[in-house]
Amino acid sequence: MNMPDVIQKKRDGGELSRAEIDFFVQGFTAGTIPDYQAAALLMAMFLRKLNLEETYHLTEAMRLSGESADLSAIPGIKVDKHSTGGVGDKTTLVVAPLAAACGVPIAKMSGRGLGFTGGTIDKLEAIPGFQTAVAPTDFLDQIGRIGLAVVGQTARIAPADKKIYVLRDVTATVDDISLITASIMSKKLASGSDAIVLDVKCGKGAFMEDMESAGQLARMMVDMGRQAGKKTIALITDANQPLGQTVGNSLEVIEAIETLKGAGPADITELSLVLAGYMIYAGEKADTPEAGRKMAEAALADGRALAKLRQLITAQGGDPAVIDDYSRFPQPANCLHIYASSAQPFSAAYVTAINARRIGLASQHSGAGRIQKDDPLDLSAGIRLLKKVGDPVKADAAIAVLYGNDIAKLEAAAGEVRTAFTIETAPPKDSSLLILDVIE
Amino acid sequence: MNMPDVIQKKRDGGELSRAEIDFFVQGFTAGTIPDYQAAALLMAMFLRKLNLEETYHLTEAMRLSGESADLSAIPGIKVDKHSTGGVGDKTTLVVAPLAAACGVPIAKMSGRGLGFTGGTIDKLEAIPGFQTAVAPTDFLDQIGRIGLAVVGQTARIAPADKKIYVLRDVTATVDDISLITASIMSKKLASGSDAIVLDVKCGKGAFMEDMESAGQLARMMVDMGRQAGKKTIALITDANQPLGQTVGNSLEVIEAIETLKGAGPADITELSLVLAGYMIYAGEKADTPEAGRKMAEAALADGRALAKLRQLITAQGGDPAVIDDYSRFPQPANCLHIYASSAQPFSAAYVTAINARRIGLASQHSGAGRIQKDDPLDLSAGIRLLKKVGDPVKADAAIAVLYGNDIAKLEAAAGEVRTAFTIETAPPKDSSLLILDVIE
Repeated sequence: MNMPDVIQKKRDGGELSRAEIDFFVQGFTAGTIPDYQAAALLMAMFLRKLNLEETYHLTEAMRLSGESADLSAIPGIKVDKHSTGGVGDKTTLVVAPLAAACGVPIAKMSGRGLGFTGGTIDKLEAIPGFQTAVAPTDFLDQIGRIGLAVVGQTARIAPADKKIYVLRDVTATVDDISLITASIMSKKLASGSDAIVLDVKCGKGAFMEDMESAGQLARMMVDMGRQAGKKTIALITDANQPLGQTVGNSLEVIEAIETLKGAGPADITELSLVLAGYMIYAGEKADTPEAGRKMAEAALADGRALAKLRQLITAQGGDPAVIDDYSRFPQPANCLHIYASSAQPFSAAYVTAINARRIGLASQHSGAGRIQKDDPLDLSAGIRLLKKVGDPVKADAAIAVLYGNDIAKLEAAAGEVRTAFTIETAPPKDSSLLILDVIE
Repeated sequence: MNMPDVIQKKRDGGELSRAEIDFFVQGFTAGTIPDYQAAALLMAMFLRKLNLEETYHLTEAMRLSGESADLSAIPGIKVDKHSTGGVGDKTTLVVAPLAAACGVPIAKMSGRGLGFTGGTIDKLEAIPGFQTAVAPTDFLDQIGRIGLAVVGQTARIAPADKKIYVLRDVTATVDDISLITASIMSKKLASGSDAIVLDVKCGKGAFMEDMESAGQLARMMVDMGRQAGKKTIALITDANQPLGQTVGNSLEVIEAIETLKGAGPADITELSLVLAGYMIYAGEKADTPEAGRKMAEAALADGRALAKLRQLITAQGGDPAVIDDYSRFPQPANCLHIYASSAQPFSAAYVTAINARRIGLASQHSGAGRIQKDDPLDLSAGIRLLKKVGDPVKADAAIAVLYGNDIAKLEAAAGEVRTAFTIETAPPKDSSLLILDVIE
């Protein structure tokens, strides 16, 4: 077998065999297939598409490129949760304690921020002392003890995905449904959980901007999970405006804590309860997702979920006092208020849209995200949205606040925040549907 | 401007601007754009296609990546000739002396063999002492003196093409009409001639296997030449069976000399006279291609063309005595006769097809071509076809002879030669049309 023949076959619309896909993934991971041949094949895959079977073979080959976590020592149905990445999406910090508090073992491996979307691991590192690099035996031990661990994904999980993703990122081959599916599912399947709940973001702040493509991605990921023998459920959720009121690492952890205290924004609270409900149902602690949601509501109301977060922070070396004293989080040296701008003066108007991608970029530029791969983060940086879609605004009121240590970065990001807001004199049509579809 | 955006634009079917194509070609040639991004773009170009304007920009950008030869010191209309590559195609060795003998200045830069097709420069080096690396001043001086020079293309001509071609060869992006056009025409336009006659090969021994794709390639190349202000004519010629009776370096030079002596195979003689006729017409030494052909016939008949070849060999340091004594060419240590094979014994049958690509591969494997880029050639190696399409064959008669120094290589190539022949009891339908179309 040789790489030009494999490339040519896909280029001409042929279906690659399992052996051909294994040849590519193994050779590229081992370094015997050069990146220019991989790039040509990825572009041919992007334009000619992979069918379900090819996508499954690719997912499996990428999963098998590294180790798989063995969670069999932990009793019960382990449930994983994954979001395709939304601006301001801190739900993992809420739903993992919620589901764990209801008896579902959660062995979560998470990633860092990528481009304009944040990552759970970066957010958790805003908690002073919190360790995200945890040895496998400590990981299992912690789940056995408190039913919950959230750690960084090691380089040993699906190394092919890491190498392929870096190449896709610089060759305009990122936003293909099969390639996204293989990237996400190879890692999820290697993470060792028995069931997976997927949150597929749809809208201006996500890879998938419309329901059709989000639906295709959701169905393909569910199909891959099923074929691998894992119970898999995908929720398609709205990502047109940022989730909650904050974007940025410390800011989002604080908002997640507020949510677990029952004082969070309505959208975060609602999405977290729905996702936790599905996780509790997938973990067979409830007969229906609705019954799971009721259990999650109870764990939220009586403080068990917040207690579980406290246990998590303590177990991973973090300072649990941050829960009661937010001043223990990294504090920004500067803040910058953003005021509504309009072509015409107005006395009363409404926010009719907030472009989530622009807010994500503004947060990244404020210091909360990386521009280059190894940039240090400003954990205090980010944005608080004072107004969300549907809120009335006055000309003299601030609509958002930028936080961070570097005032020049905040000033540079201000324009992005301002232009992310659409302000009109008529209120927006009510379309506040958060859960757009469920695929199981 | 950045490369992922350019790749994405072409990936999504957009039309690349001149600035974007320049950015790619200049950056890739300079090494600032890595080969994996170039590979992704080339695959996107292959699958999304380039339109005429983009192809012209690509051709120009590649031409401008290096030097252009300045032939203005030579009076008259300089005419170049290029073949897209056929098995056994030694016509340059015949038409260049023919056209030069009729007063058309020929400043020819040629290449080496590539895959299963040979190259004029390798063939000329079978002549003992012949130098193909000639300094620019000597090149011009020689054309001024004898009206003819055939030299190797230097690395200074279209270096972008060299780099892009190497990458296309290993990423399954070779056989695209726009990319082939830009590769050929960037070099032809940089070579400095005023007019170009193209021989586009069509059939089983060529890149273009059918008339439709050969016609598209011919029209596109003619269009590029015109846009650059050069008189450009393309002939589409049959390449289903090898041209003439020999394939291999010494063997083909000898056959070219035989043709200039009036004793060559009918197909080589005919194609050479037609091509020379068009070159003489393009060089404005005749009013029509047919009148040009008559002039070429006369130069062949009275020995002026052969004398011109003798001048060429002498001018470039070769031994002109080879013309009269073929034993001065490199001699093979071994030969191997190939006999017809058939499922059933036959007393009388006909050759109905000879697969040119297989004959080309057999010649390459006999030692006449390179497998790896820097392999030394066996200049004595190759194949003599004793039978061609339409010839009757008997079961006990040889159909071909393999020559070369390494008997093991000849034995390995024997099967390819044998299976290249199709032998049937009924004679083939007469379809011996050599010139399939002319595009001007």
